[in-house]
Amino acid sequence: MKHFAIEEVNTWQRHYRTNFINCLSGFKSAMLIGTVSNNRQTNAAVFSNIVHIGANPAPVGFMNRPRQAAPHTIANIESTGVYTMNHIHTSFVQQAHQTSAKYAEDENEFEKVGLIAEWKANIAAPFVAESKIKYAVQLVEIIPVKHNETFLVIGRVTNIFIDETIIDKDGYLHIDTVGSVVALGIDGYYETHLSARYSYAKPGIPTEKIN
Amino acid sequence: MKHFAIEEVNTWQRHYRTNFINCLSGFKSAMLIGTVSNNRQTNAAVFSNIVHIGANPAPVGFMNRPRQAAPHTIANIESTGVYTMNHIHTSFVQQAHQTSAKYAEDENEFEKVGLIAEWKANIAAPFVAESKIKYAVQLVEIIPVKHNETFLVIGRVTNIFIDETIIDKDGYLHIDTVGSVVALGIDGYYETHLSARYSYAKPGIPTEKIN
Repeated sequence: MKHFAIEEVNTWQRHYRTNFINCLSGFKSAMLIGTVSNNRQTNAAVFSNIVHIGANPAPVGFMNRPRQAAPHTIANIESTGVYTMNHIHTSFVQQAHQTSAKYAEDENEFEKVGLIAEWKANIAAPFVAESKIKYAVQLVEIIPVKHNETFLVIGRVTNIFIDETIIDKDGYLHIDTVGSVVALGIDGYYETHLSARYSYAKPGIPTEKIN
Repeated sequence: MKHFAIEEVNTWQRHYRTNFINCLSGFKSAMLIGTVSNNRQTNAAVFSNIVHIGANPAPVGFMNRPRQAAPHTIANIESTGVYTMNHIHTSFVQQAHQTSAKYAEDENEFEKVGLIAEWKANIAAPFVAESKIKYAVQLVEIIPVKHNETFLVIGRVTNIFIDETIIDKDGYLHIDTVGSVVALGIDGYYETHLSARYSYAKPGIPTEKIN
């Protein structure tokens, strides 16, 4: 095992350090967030820092980088109050990563990267047509992290569209079977293989594999 | 594609709904957080809502459930200001999941689940000896989410201990090669397989696989 003090890490070249520190926090969810601006320009952007916040109601959060680094998604969410979260599958991971390019505000990122914007009745933000697990979200709260000008954006899930073949009998979603990918660092994407689900853990009773 | 409005989801049985909503937010990092109480009781607890917040300095965040549901880790962090984050590997995922049992405050969760607490010089929190990617963290800020009494806990990485064979030439960490697992929902764990890394995306230039 190698030991690095942060003082040493801080002296490293920027790109090397960014890869290293990003990977330390481990595997991440990989989602495309769909939004639209006040003047009807659609936007799709890849995000990987997604958190589950609760199940009833169903708030979900994501970290947004400082405003100058990632301005469009958060500005659109602030102006419309609505966005969509779309799982990224292996079949379109390249297009999803391409959304991280710095397109201008008046460019349609769906068209630019080769994805299809899909509109649903009564939902004022575009979905990614290619995604088999996606949902509309209503903005609840944007919490600034004073430490470095990032934001935790929290919304309530309102409408879910899902390939129902992935729903297990207890509500668990086998998202791997439709190719939902995992992200690592700033540019890595992984496929997954179910190792095991484990029974509800109780003191004194070893948890066991349940499938 | 099946459509569910949240009003319907809210009527579902609690366990079914919890699985469903937890899985919607996708794959997650899986970490054991090591802490110690003021009276020297060590604690290890599995967490899966981890976010990368920045690379310089290196703040990392995790979501803590409401205090009554998950009291020990956050209380220890508040009293000592220090904790460790340890990747969970396939070789000890069962023990890691067992830490989610509701042990009493005076029980040593490392011993109870069969993991080894490892102390390092000048770091006042225990590591998981079995983990090959782990780091000490200094508390920076605990941000309450008013919406449902959860917390975003943010700390600064101070010391990193890592199997150096996983470090690529550009700083990227091949955490899959030492068996770091991915979590899904409240009880699922997955192994991963690198699909691809993609080049830095720029407008007008399709991103390409870089390994």
